[in-house]
Amino acid sequence: MMESIKVFAPATVANVGCGYDILGFALEGYGDELILTERQDDQLVIKTIQGVAELPLDPTKNVSTVTISALLEDLKLNKGFDLKIKKNIAAGSGLGSSASSAAAAAYAVNEFLGGPISSEELIKFAMEGERIASTKAHADNVAPSILGGFTVVRSYDPLDVFNIPYPEDLRVVIIFPQVEVKTSDAKKIIKEQVKLSDAIKQWGNVAGLVSGLILHDFERIGKSLQDVVIEPVRSYLIPLYQEMKTIALNVGALGFSISGSGPSMFCFVRDTSESSLIIERAKELYGKNGIDVISFVSGINNMGAKTLD
Amino acid sequence: MMESIKVFAPATVANVGCGYDILGFALEGYGDELILTERQDDQLVIKTIQGVAELPLDPTKNVSTVTISALLEDLKLNKGFDLKIKKNIAAGSGLGSSASSAAAAAYAVNEFLGGPISSEELIKFAMEGERIASTKAHADNVAPSILGGFTVVRSYDPLDVFNIPYPEDLRVVIIFPQVEVKTSDAKKIIKEQVKLSDAIKQWGNVAGLVSGLILHDFERIGKSLQDVVIEPVRSYLIPLYQEMKTIALNVGALGFSISGSGPSMFCFVRDTSESSLIIERAKELYGKNGIDVISFVSGINNMGAKTLD
Repeated sequence: MMESIKVFAPATVANVGCGYDILGFALEGYGDELILTERQDDQLVIKTIQGVAELPLDPTKNVSTVTISALLEDLKLNKGFDLKIKKNIAAGSGLGSSASSAAAAAYAVNEFLGGPISSEELIKFAMEGERIASTKAHADNVAPSILGGFTVVRSYDPLDVFNIPYPEDLRVVIIFPQVEVKTSDAKKIIKEQVKLSDAIKQWGNVAGLVSGLILHDFERIGKSLQDVVIEPVRSYLIPLYQEMKTIALNVGALGFSISGSGPSMFCFVRDTSESSLIIERAKELYGKNGIDVISFVSGINNMGAKTLD
Repeated sequence: MMESIKVFAPATVANVGCGYDILGFALEGYGDELILTERQDDQLVIKTIQGVAELPLDPTKNVSTVTISALLEDLKLNKGFDLKIKKNIAAGSGLGSSASSAAAAAYAVNEFLGGPISSEELIKFAMEGERIASTKAHADNVAPSILGGFTVVRSYDPLDVFNIPYPEDLRVVIIFPQVEVKTSDAKKIIKEQVKLSDAIKQWGNVAGLVSGLILHDFERIGKSLQDVVIEPVRSYLIPLYQEMKTIALNVGALGFSISGSGPSMFCFVRDTSESSLIIERAKELYGKNGIDVISFVSGINNMGAKTLD
């Protein structure tokens, strides 16, 4: 039996405009790594956390170890592991940092144990990790981080998550201004009531986005990437949001919205020339306002969490 | 040039569970007929209305003539027509009675004129007819009545309507208890605010239903046919709603919900044996409670409005 396993779980974009709490997709080449090594006792010990995020080493407070505890408890296993975590995603980026750690942890333990649990079922354990970082156990980041691709959380009770097809040549531009938006703050400003007329607009756009993705209708994807419920309040937490959105849409982006709870923003593009231009303009806009910005283009990652050599 | 044209426009199911105001589909073999004959003057005259519905002959109050006026005005044409209307759909049935008349009228005039207007554009004129019957100009019945198939109204402003694919072997059972629910009454009881948590459930189900239809996933279609926003209030207007729903689901119906504003109900089925059983049980249930019921099985009509010989 192996003693150690190294895994990767990708960064993710949740909400995806109109799909607050139900839609998400995985990014390529950007995510967290986790090395899990079996211990002789039943302790979970975080040995090192490298990288961009400052995170708790206390196993009751770290999303990775909380996820592993939930999983081992469900399997009624007394096992211990050392964890070495490499964070490539900043906490508070809106790119599913905590979800990536939770997904990596759930995936690693399951692989280590020879895969007793299906990928779909792993989601609910990773959600327990997410609960630590957020006020609620959301699945819209952990689902795509584990499963890859574009995911729908149709229902939370019972949990019903599935992948939907999407055009393989769809590209995503991520614009991440270097300011922190706490998920908990971003959640506080969401109203508990929605105007029915806005809810109708939102589910019309969900129908448009989902059908546009499955049918590879780029124009429809762009038109449907609207959010009349969350964006109007959360965009105020993101510096220069409207300016950046206008620039991206003028350059030809297919829709533009907030990634998760922000401050990262994203847009879909078809062409690499558009993505280069959007990245260039983002650097100009934020640069002249004295804000550093990380910006990159990615495909949708169809793999999800995976074992590394 | 022809002097007269005879058209048919199908009955429709709107809302479709989770898709309040945005989803609809057309039924087979059940709908309104309209004979349009050119006049020498510029008057619109309703000569006869045959069939189940008692409707106004006043051209400013009948959905067919209001639709035609809107269309002729937009085209800046001074033309007059005699109308003979055959209603097969009762007003207040929840099966798109007014929409069928509006769709037939818009379609007939456009065909008569040689088709100057696209089917998608016709929808907005038929919506003007709908405005007379309802408090608002809805498109979720007129869109499938004109276009056929399963339609999404992604946006009302600007109007953006499209068809989505669906499994051809999907069958619909309609259960229409002979009590009247006025659309205007059914609209009054809808709250103007929705709990965010309910709105999220609803758009999760929209994503599930739309993807289930396009990908021919019957299980997902069934699971997604839920309505946590409208059904909880409107179902009280329909006698024996919960009993009928339980019976249909127990027999194997793929979901069950209210058609439009009711009192008609509908469910999807895959098999004709299920549909026969549901119809039989509906007759038993309503029969023993002294309520007549019209019940039938239909495919989804992929044709929409059409010219008759």
